[in-house]
This record gives sequence, structure tokens and C-alpha cells, in this order.
Amino acid sequence: MTSDFEYIDGELYVEKVPVKKICEDFGTPVYIYSHNFIRSSFFEYKRAFREIDPLICYSVKANSNLSVLKIFCSMDCGFDIVSSGELQRVIKVGGNPSKVVFSGVGKTEEEIETALRSRILFFNVESEAELRKINEVALRLEQKAPVAIRVNPDINPDTHPYISTGFEKSKFGIGISKAMDVYKNASLMKGIEVKGIDAHIGSQIFDLSSFSESISKLIYLAENLSRHGIQVSYIDIGGGLGISYESEEKPPAKSEYAKVFEEYLRDTSYRLVLEPGRSMVGNAGIMATRVLYIKDGTSKKFVIVDAAMNDLIRPAFYDSFHRIEPVRGIDLESSDVVDIVGPICESGDFLARDRNFPAVSSGELLAVFSAGAYGFVMSSNYNTRPRAAEVLVSGDRYCEIRARETVEEMLKAERIAEFL
Amino acid sequence: MTSDFEYIDGELYVEKVPVKKICEDFGTPVYIYSHNFIRSSFFEYKRAFREIDPLICYSVKANSNLSVLKIFCSMDCGFDIVSSGELQRVIKVGGNPSKVVFSGVGKTEEEIETALRSRILFFNVESEAELRKINEVALRLEQKAPVAIRVNPDINPDTHPYISTGFEKSKFGIGISKAMDVYKNASLMKGIEVKGIDAHIGSQIFDLSSFSESISKLIYLAENLSRHGIQVSYIDIGGGLGISYESEEKPPAKSEYAKVFEEYLRDTSYRLVLEPGRSMVGNAGIMATRVLYIKDGTSKKFVIVDAAMNDLIRPAFYDSFHRIEPVRGIDLESSDVVDIVGPICESGDFLARDRNFPAVSSGELLAVFSAGAYGFVMSSNYNTRPRAAEVLVSGDRYCEIRARETVEEMLKAERIAEFL
Repeated sequence: MTSDFEYIDGELYVEKVPVKKICEDFGTPVYIYSHNFIRSSFFEYKRAFREIDPLICYSVKANSNLSVLKIFCSMDCGFDIVSSGELQRVIKVGGNPSKVVFSGVGKTEEEIETALRSRILFFNVESEAELRKINEVALRLEQKAPVAIRVNPDINPDTHPYISTGFEKSKFGIGISKAMDVYKNASLMKGIEVKGIDAHIGSQIFDLSSFSESISKLIYLAENLSRHGIQVSYIDIGGGLGISYESEEKPPAKSEYAKVFEEYLRDTSYRLVLEPGRSMVGNAGIMATRVLYIKDGTSKKFVIVDAAMNDLIRPAFYDSFHRIEPVRGIDLESSDVVDIVGPICESGDFLARDRNFPAVSSGELLAVFSAGAYGFVMSSNYNTRPRAAEVLVSGDRYCEIRARETVEEMLKAERIAEFL
Repeated sequence: MTSDFEYIDGELYVEKVPVKKICEDFGTPVYIYSHNFIRSSFFEYKRAFREIDPLICYSVKANSNLSVLKIFCSMDCGFDIVSSGELQRVIKVGGNPSKVVFSGVGKTEEEIETALRSRILFFNVESEAELRKINEVALRLEQKAPVAIRVNPDINPDTHPYISTGFEKSKFGIGISKAMDVYKNASLMKGIEVKGIDAHIGSQIFDLSSFSESISKLIYLAENLSRHGIQVSYIDIGGGLGISYESEEKPPAKSEYAKVFEEYLRDTSYRLVLEPGRSMVGNAGIMATRVLYIKDGTSKKFVIVDAAMNDLIRPAFYDSFHRIEPVRGIDLESSDVVDIVGPICESGDFLARDRNFPAVSSGELLAVFSAGAYGFVMSSNYNTRPRAAEVLVSGDRYCEIRARETVEEMLKAERIAEFL
């Protein structure tokens, strides 16, 4: 917890605004983000890496709300995108395409064309087939497509298998042993301009040695390429720095993280590219939810809240831990072991299981912490539940940056077939 | 596979329409449902259960598209809902609220009020706290709220833990040992009218003995209630009958399923309520997707398609198996072991793993079978991916029943805070 999320006189504030006030104004469940936290995260990265001045490309998929992107844009941050929808978002907030890198294993022809026309910095190319497709589209547009080849350094960091991406059997990147051949092919393609090397080994990583191993492999490859007449300017190390979801978790300081790369890069001409997502915004947001019912099951106690797995899927999907506390503060004197669950008709619909939790009553507000990344962006309409509102706080100001969905909006695209 | 999804001259048809034609017209990924399959499923239930004529309440959450609901409505089917959004859907297609049962552990006060004003058949009440809330709302509206108490028969069928719901530690229902007390309380509440008993032991169940155990416990409770002067009219057994996702799976025939209940109910005055969802629509739909790239990884081969876990989350979320075949037919002579994966930047984004699959090339169409239930309804905009289109086929006619989402629509509710 930082001072942007603080209890003052037994009430949780986001910056200078009581969470309770926001819930009264916009209802629950609601995602609430701190402007200051996001800015501070970015500047912490900038400070930590000042010696080598990397290009920081915020990973849009972590939290793509237009206001969140606007904050990064105002700080002259770059963007890591994975779809043309994300590119449209970046352009909409005035982001500079020349600071955009485009990742992802399944870019469509239309997406490649849109990105080329927008003059992005480079594509992170994930396969030889994609490289050929990009070459083909670039030739058609009479352009040279800037690319980095995503290599797979075969590192298996200790994280959830769904967010570990750099091991040999993953769908991502090109095996590092094959990389030289692919680069040689790329350098011969008339529509391709080789700009860099890319890797991304996973997400929520705490062990710096995985990053060290990855950067050393990438530099070794870059030097090798250079000996074969292929010069790269950028080394894109991806994202993946872990954050603390539980108070006891101690992720590496950004300064320690920076040191890993400085050591390898300070005497080279390569420009580092970083793609942080979770470590920028994960702890910049909470989800507030209201208690509907307290239920004493035969052998378990349940706190039933108005947020469900359609609002925050991480606990069910990744078995993730999120700290949860009453908005009125913590008082563990009267605590009990409970499951905190939502209204959806699946046993998988839970926010916390077997959690030691203070006694709360129907109508009370709870805060689910660390909900700034992979929270709202993964939400769905399952059970015909409208998606939550999103609110941004800046000092004593706050603004609804995504209106709560209505049932009418949900139904709008549907129609009854004329033959029924 | 039924004749509603058939290969004719090396091309997959839904009823009388080639899947290829639909993909050309509406793009991919696209969900395609068969009108005839849905009708046949319903009539199969009606025939199987003709002796005891239950009230069949289609479980809206499985597939809530307005056209799908309209089909059920036209056959005079009832509905099992879990939110007021679902109630709005039912009313919008002309469904009769007097055939609606309202399930779910977290009904809000507004939802209870809406349902009472709509005069639904009954609430399936999941906790004592909810019972008190319903009583309170009913008294305020000067109504009597019709209720069934959902009891938890403590049966643990052999299925995925996320969709097993009738075991003692689940958040659902009231332990059957406590049920008598809750019914006694309910019968004394001025705003409550006891109408039935409800249970739902889970989903995708193949073993009929679980259902037999459940119905016998419910009838025992009903008789016991009767001896205490509490008469129930309805016994709601929930849903949960399994379907075949793999060709080798042999779910029980509906006639066998019906026999379980007939045996117990034929000489009683209780009316059975069924809440089938998956067994009505699961095999009534496919998702068609296009191959983007074939990627030969160092130690694995990947077929990268344009549908991702945001379109169909079941493989990643429940570790579900979906049969996948090229739309041009099956030819295993040139088969290979592949992962079929989508464009999303997570290793969890897969549709199939280590699957023996015919050689396919970029641009080809694949059909993902058994996608009619818990498919589109669970889809999200993760990675700023627009949600797929939905198409209904009826004979040689077909109609887009949900338009493919656009990026503009996705961004519409978002705004940049004025203070940024």
C-alpha cells in the first residue's frame, strides 16, 4: 500500500477522495485508479534507468482505458500494443506511433497494414510466416516494415504457467538457436528493415537472474548478428517485473531491476526497450464492491458481494491472490475465516477463499487491491451482468472514465432473426 | 455430430448453409447456431418427460442471445434466470414471467423488486439473509413473494470443481439438514409464499445416480415439510445433464434421465422443474475461425487462428476439450500433433493442445464444435479485441443475430478525464 491508497480516520482514501464517496456517486462494483500512482510508477522507472535512458513502452493490454493511456502519453511514454484496437486507442489519446511496438503471435493482414500506415517504431515478429506476411504487406504499400524478431531464450521463470512465455514449448517467439537464420532471411527481404531483437519471458517475475539471463542471451545474439553484417539498434526485453499482491511479497526494486540491464548495456550502442504493464498500473487501482449477504453455510461462512468473476477473473483464472479489506478499515479482533464470493452461478466465482476476514455486514463496502492491471480489461458480460464503472482520481478530483454499462447497451447489437 | 452439422462433399454445413458462406459474409471468428438443433433438443426433453410433464426452464446463462431465447419462447418454454439483465432479455423476446424462476446467490434489492413486479413463478432462495431481504421487499410492495429454498443435498458429482455446486462447502443453497428450520421460518414470513424446493448439483454430469440421489432427498424433504403443514407444489431439480464434447463421450440419453425422475414423481402431486442449459444448446453451435499462421516451433507446431481465449475461454478456464476440424473436412492421413492457439499474449490462450490434426494452411477455416453453451456469453474484450458475430441458421436461411463488435463501440463508454 502506498500513500495513494490510505486509511484516514478509519476510511479508505484514493489520494484525497474517500472510496465511499465514489461508490455513492457511481455505484458498485467500481474500479478506481490513482493518477498520482501511475505517474509515480513511470517516473520511478525513468529514474531507475536514467543511466541508459531506455524507451519505455507501456503495455496497453494491462489497462487500456483511454484516460490511463492519456496519462502515459502526457509523460511522453511509448506503447506496447497487441492489436489494431490497441493502436486505435493510442492514436485516440494523441500517442506517437513512432514510439509504438506491436507484439503478438496473430497479427492479421489488416492489422499489419494499419500499423504500417501509422508508421510504428517496429513489429515484434513472432514467426517466419508472420515475417513473410509483413514483408508482403510492406511491399504492397511500398514501404519497409521495421521489425524486431522475438526470440525465445528458453528461460522458464517461476510464475503461473499461463503467464510464462519464454520457455521452449511456448507459442511465442522463435527459438534462439534458429534466430540467426531468420535474421539472415529477414535482412534479404525487400520489405523488411531489421531494427531490433525482442524477448518477453513472462509476467509477475521476482527473480532478477531470469532477466539477466535473457539480456545476456539477447546481447550475445546482437553481437553475433553484427559479425554477420546485421546491425540492430533496439533490444526489447519485454516486461514481466513482478509486483506485490500480498503485503509479505517483496518484488525487486526498480533500481535493482535497472542495474541488471545497465551492466550489460552501458558500453553498447543498443537502445533498451521496456514493456512494463502490471508493474506500472497493477497497484494503481482497486475494485470496490458492496456486501450483499452474509451466509453461514453448514461448514463455511460466505461474504457474498456484488462483484463477480465477470468483473475480476484473476482469482478464478490464475488462482491469484488479491488483498481485500473493508473500506472502513481493518479490525481483525472479530475476524473469521470466510470465502468472499460473487453472484455468478459457478463455484469458480470467488474473489478470496478461506480468508481471515473481519466481521462485516450487508451493505458494507470492500476494497479489492492490486486491481489496476488485468482487471477491467478482462471483464465480461457473463450472466448478463453489465460491466463495472471505472473512475480516475487525481488529488481531490475524480472522474468517471468509463460509464457503467447498461442492459440496453448490452442488448443493442443483438437481434431476433426475421425468420423466427 | 448430428445432421445439423454435417460434411457434404467435403464441406461443413450448418443445416443447409455452408459454414464457408457464413464466414465470407460475416468474417471470423463467428459463432453459428442451428435453429433446428435447439428445437429438437427441446422436443427431445418434452418427449422424454411426457409422462410427468415438467416445467422446463431453459437456463438463460448458457446462451442468452435474444434469437436463441425467442426460439425457446416460441415453444412455450420457461426460463431459469440469474440476473435482472436476463429477466429483461426474457421479457424482450415475449417470454412469460410466470414461467420464470430466478436463481443465484447474490440477488440485489433492485433485482428482487424487478422480479416481483414482473410476477415471476418463484425465486430460488440461496440463504436466510436473502430470504429476509425478499420478504422485506415483498412487504414494501404489498406482495407475497413466491419462493423455493435451494437446498444443498451434499452430493459431489464427478465434474470440474468450478461447475460442481451441490457439495457441502459450496456457496450455493442451504444445507439440507438446516432446510426444515428455514422453511418453518419462511412459512411464518408475511411477505413469503413457499412454492417449492430447489437443488442444483452441478454441470456436465454423466452419472445418473447423482440425480437419483438428489431427487430422492428432495422428495423426502417435501414429505417431511408436508407433515409439518408446509405444502410445496414444485420440485426444481436444476440442470446439469452432461453433453458429449468428444465423440467417445456417451452422455445419458434424455429418456434415461427422465426415468430417474418419473420413478420418484409419477405418483405424487409435485410438478418437476428442470433447468437445462448446456444440454439444450451446447451442441447447437460451433465457432468458426480462420488460420492466420502455421508456426514450426523448436519443439512444437502451432496453428495460430484468429479466435482467442477472449472469444472462447472454456479451454483455458475449465481445461475443456472442444473438437476442432477443418471446415473442408477431415483428412488425418497428413496429420501432425499441434497446439491450436489464438493471438492473445498469454500461454493460456489456446483452443487445443497436443492435438492430432490434419495439415492445414494459412487462410483455412476451422470449426470449433460444442460452442453453443458458455461460449459467446463468456467472451470479453481482452487485448481490445472486438467480440465475435453470432449467426443463426434455419434450413437454408441464416441471419446475423449479433453484429460483430467494432473498436468504436468498445471505446464509446470511455472518456478522458477533464483534469488530464
